[in-house]
Amino acid sequence: MVKDFKKIKPPKSINSVTIIGKNGNVSWHLQNALSSLSISHTIISSKEALKRIELNSNLIIIAVADSAVEKVAKKIKSKNSILVHTSGSLDMNILKSYAENYGVIYPLQTLSKEKQIKFSDTPLCIEGSSDETSKSLMKFSKKLSKRVSLISSDKRLKLHLAAVFCSNFINHLIGIAKEILEKEDIPAEIIYPLVIETIQKAMNNNPFEVQTGPAIREDYHIMQTHLDLLLKDEKEVYEVISSKIINRKRTKMKNTKK
Amino acid sequence: MVKDFKKIKPPKSINSVTIIGKNGNVSWHLQNALSSLSISHTIISSKEALKRIELNSNLIIIAVADSAVEKVAKKIKSKNSILVHTSGSLDMNILKSYAENYGVIYPLQTLSKEKQIKFSDTPLCIEGSSDETSKSLMKFSKKLSKRVSLISSDKRLKLHLAAVFCSNFINHLIGIAKEILEKEDIPAEIIYPLVIETIQKAMNNNPFEVQTGPAIREDYHIMQTHLDLLLKDEKEVYEVISSKIINRKRTKMKNTKK
Repeated sequence: MVKDFKKIKPPKSINSVTIIGKNGNVSWHLQNALSSLSISHTIISSKEALKRIELNSNLIIIAVADSAVEKVAKKIKSKNSILVHTSGSLDMNILKSYAENYGVIYPLQTLSKEKQIKFSDTPLCIEGSSDETSKSLMKFSKKLSKRVSLISSDKRLKLHLAAVFCSNFINHLIGIAKEILEKEDIPAEIIYPLVIETIQKAMNNNPFEVQTGPAIREDYHIMQTHLDLLLKDEKEVYEVISSKIINRKRTKMKNTKK
Repeated sequence: MVKDFKKIKPPKSINSVTIIGKNGNVSWHLQNALSSLSISHTIISSKEALKRIELNSNLIIIAVADSAVEKVAKKIKSKNSILVHTSGSLDMNILKSYAENYGVIYPLQTLSKEKQIKFSDTPLCIEGSSDETSKSLMKFSKKLSKRVSLISSDKRLKLHLAAVFCSNFINHLIGIAKEILEKEDIPAEIIYPLVIETIQKAMNNNPFEVQTGPAIREDYHIMQTHLDLLLKDEKEVYEVISSKIINRKRTKMKNTKK
């Protein structure tokens, strides 16, 4: 075993941050969080970063579109920084060739610019290229949020997949529901208590065991009435999810009988 | 115009209630709500009701499965009661032949037995066969809940359809998300802040305008990565909703160009 004396250790304490990416949602929220904590930080656009720049901050956060992360990483010259990206689905090792110490800080939240959130409640999923890097990222991230978890790239990808179902897709379903109500001049607020109770119940139980509605009852009459009221695209969404609800119920019944 | 002197007026004030249906979720919650308000009520099973009974309470609430409502209504003998059902999708007029004064009290909430909710926050959609009946039902319902709306059968059906999307289907999506996390031993609580923020954002905005995720970005690379991780049924749900998110975006872009 040869000890690598040249190996550069990551900074133990992160006191200066560079965010690459000026226009993204994650960048906007990180800037706010760092400002409110008075952590010294600079922001540079990905355009500037692509001119090959030298950076000296303890932490460099690449907060750009997934497809641009590697392009930007390639152009950064830095010896003593930890280099991280903020993507839910990119492997940490995409940064391997571009820094000695690297990692991920993935905020598991739906972030929109100009829409303030309590960043301290945002779950941050972190990963580091070494135990020391993870430790530094953990210490830093805990200043930003009280919900920090060490999550591997593999698990983070699954987490991101789960987030697509329970955030991006839920948003689309609420869009359809609100559109149906709007056409009838029914104020959307009327469904809000239902939506809140639905997610509370789903979070506190096994959702498949508390499933309600026409599909789980196999009430084909009312399902047909509903389908007749929908346009093509919404009809397909209705049909597919209903059939999956029925499938699960039948599979469960079959397994119970065995 | 001949004035109908024989027409029986509905009770102005509802002081006694009969609930038909002993085992349903709606029945369970109504019983609780009436008890806590000390409103006199009796509960009879649909089996008893089918023996043809005479009832004298001011209000008879048929809280049984949609498919059994008419069967039960047929067997009730009552002159001075208002007869209502509690269904989201049945027309009020299903009761027309069985009572002089009839209507609907539809609680727009996901109700499970044994799971207490604040009934006073539950939106109640009411409809009456005459202005006087509506007025009586309105007065009564306002004792039960602070969210009472007069909604016609047509609109109620659409409301129920919207509820399927933003309750039954959302529940199924959270089920899929939690299952993905469970397989990875990731505690489901990690997605809770995301889900809460998602629905708050969707309620306070046009959801189609705040849509995020791989589909709206048309990031086919990550969508394929996700699809490869899913089983057949979840894959179909992923594909359909993603394609609808993309469709909407393209339609909107086309319309903006025009």
